[in-house]
Amino acid sequence: MAKRLIPLFNRVLVEKIVPPSKTNAGILLPEQSSKLNSGKVVAVGPGFHGKDGKIVPVAVKEGDTVLLPEYGGTEVKLNEKEYYLYRDDDILGTLND
Amino acid sequence: MAKRLIPLFNRVLVEKIVPPSKTNAGILLPEQSSKLNSGKVVAVGPGFHGKDGKIVPVAVKEGDTVLLPEYGGTEVKLNEKEYYLYRDDDILGTLND
Amino acid sequence: MAKRLIPLFNRVLVEKIVPPSKTNAGILLPEQSSKLNSGKVVAVGPGFHGKDGKIVPVAVKEGDTVLLPEYGGTEVKLNEKEYYLYRDDDILGTLND
Amino acid sequence: MAKRLIPLFNRVLVEKIVPPSKTNAGILLPEQSSKLNSGKVVAVGPGFHGKDGKIVPVAVKEGDTVLLPEYGGTEVKLNEKEYYLYRDDDILGTLND
Amino acid sequence: MAKRLIPLFNRVLVEKIVPPSKTNAGILLPEQSSKLNSGKVVAVGPGFHGKDGKIVPVAVKEGDTVLLPEYGGTEVKLNEKEYYLYRDDDILGTLND
Amino acid sequence: MAKRLIPLFNRVLVEKIVPPSKTNAGILLPEQSSKLNSGKVVAVGPGFHGKDGKIVPVAVKEGDTVLLPEYGGTEVKLNEKEYYLYRDDDILGTLND
Amino acid sequence: MAKRLIPLFNRVLVEKIVPPSKTNAGILLPEQSSKLNSGKVVAVGPGFHGKDGKIVPVAVKEGDTVLLPEYGGTEVKLNEKEYYLYRDDDILGTLND
Repeated sequence: MAKRLIPLFNRVLVEKIVPPSKTNAGILLPEQSSKLNSGKVVAVGPGFHGKDGKIVPVAVKEGDTVLLPEYGGTEVKLNEKEYYLYRDDDILGTLND
Repeated sequence: MAKRLIPLFNRVLVEKIVPPSKTNAGILLPEQSSKLNSGKVVAVGPGFHGKDGKIVPVAVKEGDTVLLPEYGGTEVKLNEKEYYLYRDDDILGTLND
Repeated sequence: MAKRLIPLFNRVLVEKIVPPSKTNAGILLPEQSSKLNSGKVVAVGPGFHGKDGKIVPVAVKEGDTVLLPEYGGTEVKLNEKEYYLYRDDDILGTLND
Repeated sequence: MAKRLIPLFNRVLVEKIVPPSKTNAGILLPEQSSKLNSGKVVAVGPGFHGKDGKIVPVAVKEGDTVLLPEYGGTEVKLNEKEYYLYRDDDILGTLND
Repeated sequence: MAKRLIPLFNRVLVEKIVPPSKTNAGILLPEQSSKLNSGKVVAVGPGFHGKDGKIVPVAVKEGDTVLLPEYGGTEVKLNEKEYYLYRDDDILGTLND
Repeated sequence: MAKRLIPLFNRVLVEKIVPPSKTNAGILLPEQSSKLNSGKVVAVGPGFHGKDGKIVPVAVKEGDTVLLPEYGGTEVKLNEKEYYLYRDDDILGTLND
Repeated sequence: MAKRLIPLFNRVLVEKIVPPSKTNAGILLPEQSSKLNSGKVVAVGPGFHGKDGKIVPVAVKEGDTVLLPEYGGTEVKLNEKEYYLYRDDDILGTLND
């Protein structure tokens, strides 16, 4: 039975995007193209209580492609897959096509 | 006579879930399946006073299965059993089936 | 003449409970049963001024049995007896039968 | 001409109580009775501006007997006598008979 | 397909301005003229929630030429070009002609 | 032309009082009488913006004799005389006759 | 084309005043007269958002002569001249004749 993790507060569950090291045609990509540390948002927490007593919602949403910091994040293994938990303010931005 | 601990503020009393190292059929599970550090919430505090003077309730509730951080938590021995106390904002998320 | 200490702010005066190392019948208890670090609340402060200007009352009351952190607390000798002062947010919880 | 010090903010001027090392009858008191670190409040500041813009008054008043922390306090020599200045939140409690 | 990064919170995406080390006529510029560490703002985040619950907008806007601190900033490679992410309060000022 | 310094925020400009090491009659004073570290307030800043947006005025005023902390303060030489700048909350109290 | 820097938030652009080491008549000034670390305010930022959501304006204005701290400030070279950026709360005071 698959387990589903619902993050607490402003935490965000991310599945890292492993960049292809070869193109479909089998050509090896140069190293620099694998430098972008990005991931897919799998689940987000409900936000946290701000100083004015109201909930501050999480700044990203499920399905967003996000740019991740080089360090940080908590590794979580769920249903035999690796995920990472970040506070939303550690996530650098969203990537759009 | 069994003692019951009611945590203070946003503390959460957790009983860690010890993952089975064998299946019911006696097959040894691979090491990776025991990596998920989870627990059952046994008791929660009443929350704490936010900056606006209102109580911020605890983010998890009794009976929740929670994902715990790798480090931290205060070990408490109660009625010959081991429990752990966490601040609710140290708990990473809730696990649902 | 006995002196009475009224703690300031959110401080709590606690008399530690020394666990019996033998039962009444004289049977030596195993070491683990003496691990619970608990105490009786003897006096509490009036609370402190919260950020909204209102008093935040102390989270425990006289007579409560409390679970204490392993470290911390200020030793106070009063009328030839040892007591400990804690901030209420250092106290882990209350113990109820 | 004697100088009078009016503390600023939440500071408290304290004259430490030197415990008698002998009773009036000349009997030497055991060492433990001199452990209580207490003092008489000589002057208090006007309090400080809280986050809501109102004055938070000092928690002790002139004439109070207070329990002092083992460390801290600023020594002040005034009119050939030694006093100590404390922030009121460093004072542990008031001692009443 | 080109990727577009939308920074989160008060982050600012900057493309550093590389000072020409030669003039168009091929004359080598003295070293001091390359000391100004400036960049072009490419994208800005939506701002962050202030303590009063309202959004504090980012202090610079797309197209601004900004003076950057000597250290700090997170390098990001996007569509084969190097960019830098800064919190807006780390940016020293805007440069105008 | 003499320069006048107007301190910023809650800063206070103080001229230290050098205790006479001899009385007028030429009698050498014992060392302890020179221990009181005091000064005359020469100028005060306008105060600073409190968290509620209102100005918190400086706690001392021009002409006050103040008790200074043993360490701290910024030395300033103005019109060939030495002064010291303190934040008002570093000043211990005012001295009155 | 001359560049103009507009500081961000509560930053202040200062041109340091280099004290003359000789008088106009060519007499060498004693070393102490060069100790005053002062500057001319060239540009100020718009201020920053206070905790109550309102802008707190910068405490000095263009043209002010200011007393600078001995350490700190960020050196900026602009149009072949050296300037320094300070947060307004690092500036000690204003100097008036």
